[in-house]
Amino acid sequence: MAVYTDIAETDLAAFLKQYDIGELTSYKGIAEGVENSNFLIHTTTGAYFLTLYEKRVNPADLPFFLGLKRHLADRGVRCPVPIERRDGRPTGELAGRPAAIVSFIEGMWPRRPTADHCAAVGAALARMHIAGEGFALRRENALSLAGWQALWPKCRADADGVESGLAAETDADLAFLSSNWPAGLPEGVIHADLFPDNVLFLGREPGLIDFYFACNDFLAYDVAVCLNAWCFERDFSFNLTKGTALLRGYVSVRPLSAAEAEALPVLARGAALRFMLTRLYDWINTPAGSLVVKKDPLEYLRRLRFHRQVRSPAEYGLETAAA
Amino acid sequence: MAVYTDIAETDLAAFLKQYDIGELTSYKGIAEGVENSNFLIHTTTGAYFLTLYEKRVNPADLPFFLGLKRHLADRGVRCPVPIERRDGRPTGELAGRPAAIVSFIEGMWPRRPTADHCAAVGAALARMHIAGEGFALRRENALSLAGWQALWPKCRADADGVESGLAAETDADLAFLSSNWPAGLPEGVIHADLFPDNVLFLGREPGLIDFYFACNDFLAYDVAVCLNAWCFERDFSFNLTKGTALLRGYVSVRPLSAAEAEALPVLARGAALRFMLTRLYDWINTPAGSLVVKKDPLEYLRRLRFHRQVRSPAEYGLETAAA
Repeated sequence: MAVYTDIAETDLAAFLKQYDIGELTSYKGIAEGVENSNFLIHTTTGAYFLTLYEKRVNPADLPFFLGLKRHLADRGVRCPVPIERRDGRPTGELAGRPAAIVSFIEGMWPRRPTADHCAAVGAALARMHIAGEGFALRRENALSLAGWQALWPKCRADADGVESGLAAETDADLAFLSSNWPAGLPEGVIHADLFPDNVLFLGREPGLIDFYFACNDFLAYDVAVCLNAWCFERDFSFNLTKGTALLRGYVSVRPLSAAEAEALPVLARGAALRFMLTRLYDWINTPAGSLVVKKDPLEYLRRLRFHRQVRSPAEYGLETAAA
Repeated sequence: MAVYTDIAETDLAAFLKQYDIGELTSYKGIAEGVENSNFLIHTTTGAYFLTLYEKRVNPADLPFFLGLKRHLADRGVRCPVPIERRDGRPTGELAGRPAAIVSFIEGMWPRRPTADHCAAVGAALARMHIAGEGFALRRENALSLAGWQALWPKCRADADGVESGLAAETDADLAFLSSNWPAGLPEGVIHADLFPDNVLFLGREPGLIDFYFACNDFLAYDVAVCLNAWCFERDFSFNLTKGTALLRGYVSVRPLSAAEAEALPVLARGAALRFMLTRLYDWINTPAGSLVVKKDPLEYLRRLRFHRQVRSPAEYGLETAAA
């Protein structure tokens, strides 16, 4: 839940004069997203989505994020399309923050994802990976192995206070991942945060939103993020039916190489560690009384413990060509 | 900021089958309002507003609130219109709460109200008062004198901790108001909470929303609420230009009687006490870490101190016929 910043209606109306989308008729702050302030706006020409970028987003990254959405939308991915400003700049300034307008994507994110949702997301992720080819800008993944190694020392002293034994477990995970992180897998632009609340279904048609962790990394790592985000039940058991559906959807569009398939367990373990660590950091550092709802890092510790025992991509539901 | 309750998209789609407004295409929780959970929904037929009534709204009052909006809209007031359910009931149930859908009112509430806004609001309030005639249901004002007398003992012990001397000041205000509260003024349906964030302007055209304090009471008390809500500056000085505009707008539609005019200072003092007291109660009783933004009761103590010194309605800007 967010909306850190309110906007005066006169300021917004003036801001909209930089665009060719008609006159403002309403705007409502949206209680979703924790990084930025988001508004659903109506104008005389339709519905749009306005984002004020708060301090957790680096303004230098905005051309990447906005350019990527344009690139993907031009190649048929259903995602928000940045609206062109009259002056050609990708963002303006509103309420003292960088601000951008994108098209409003209709659809509902699935609160209780089914195997059908997983299959659709797998296929949509693969289409996004292919559509991302040729995108001219590049952004490193600040939350891959080196990022985790940098983040962990900032959390380690408080870790056992959150869960007894967490420090030692995480030391071991980081050591394992440092030694076993794959190299040479196919790379490209990844979403890196494709959780259910970032996929808006209109019927069976998924739309992808919230590209603010998108970066260049192993494509198969994005698949591993989705296995974590979509295929565990609320009791933290892995749902093999959903895993099978998600992977089948993905490979129906973009087959995984043998090396990618083999790397899935370590990639999934890394992805779980990534979300455990960032949630742990926020858990420790979010002031009491903040309006931000803190997400429990232990949900990802539970996933981590599952991934540690996985020996083969078949355990996630990956079907081999020979089967 | 609210949204206490999330809704599963499957539950909402099923709920909408009780209405004839097309298929759901999106819904977003709105970060406005502190009493209920509000969602802006889009369907294949347009935009609507969905409210889940949280525990501070008495379900027995919902027929009054919803019936009033229908009554006013039928008589030309720009306000949300309740959407008819197929079964004829005013509300359904969603996520375990009473829920209703109304038409979505376009417009922006003025963050920095001008005298023009005040004039428009005064006229709109008077039109609402006239349009409310003949509404069949009745609801007592639970937050008039008897309500304040009941609320104050729940706050008094903590009052001086919020502002030194507040207990004695409030004792004196309540004693004064108990002795001087008017009787026999024209009554009708009042909004009772017509703050700037409850008036959505589309150009110069105000739309009235959030009728969840509406009740039967003196019409002039509603004017006094608006004087408090619209005509003070951020430094708590009374802006006579705005007061004049608001009252001129009101009387251009519905003249005030001599008794109503004479009562304005005491009514305005009562209205300021009402908001001071409910804010004080919330200030004392809202747990730290709650997602609700607490409003400062002292903003209304400052207004109270102004009203105590007012001797004549002319000090609010009321122009007499003789002038």
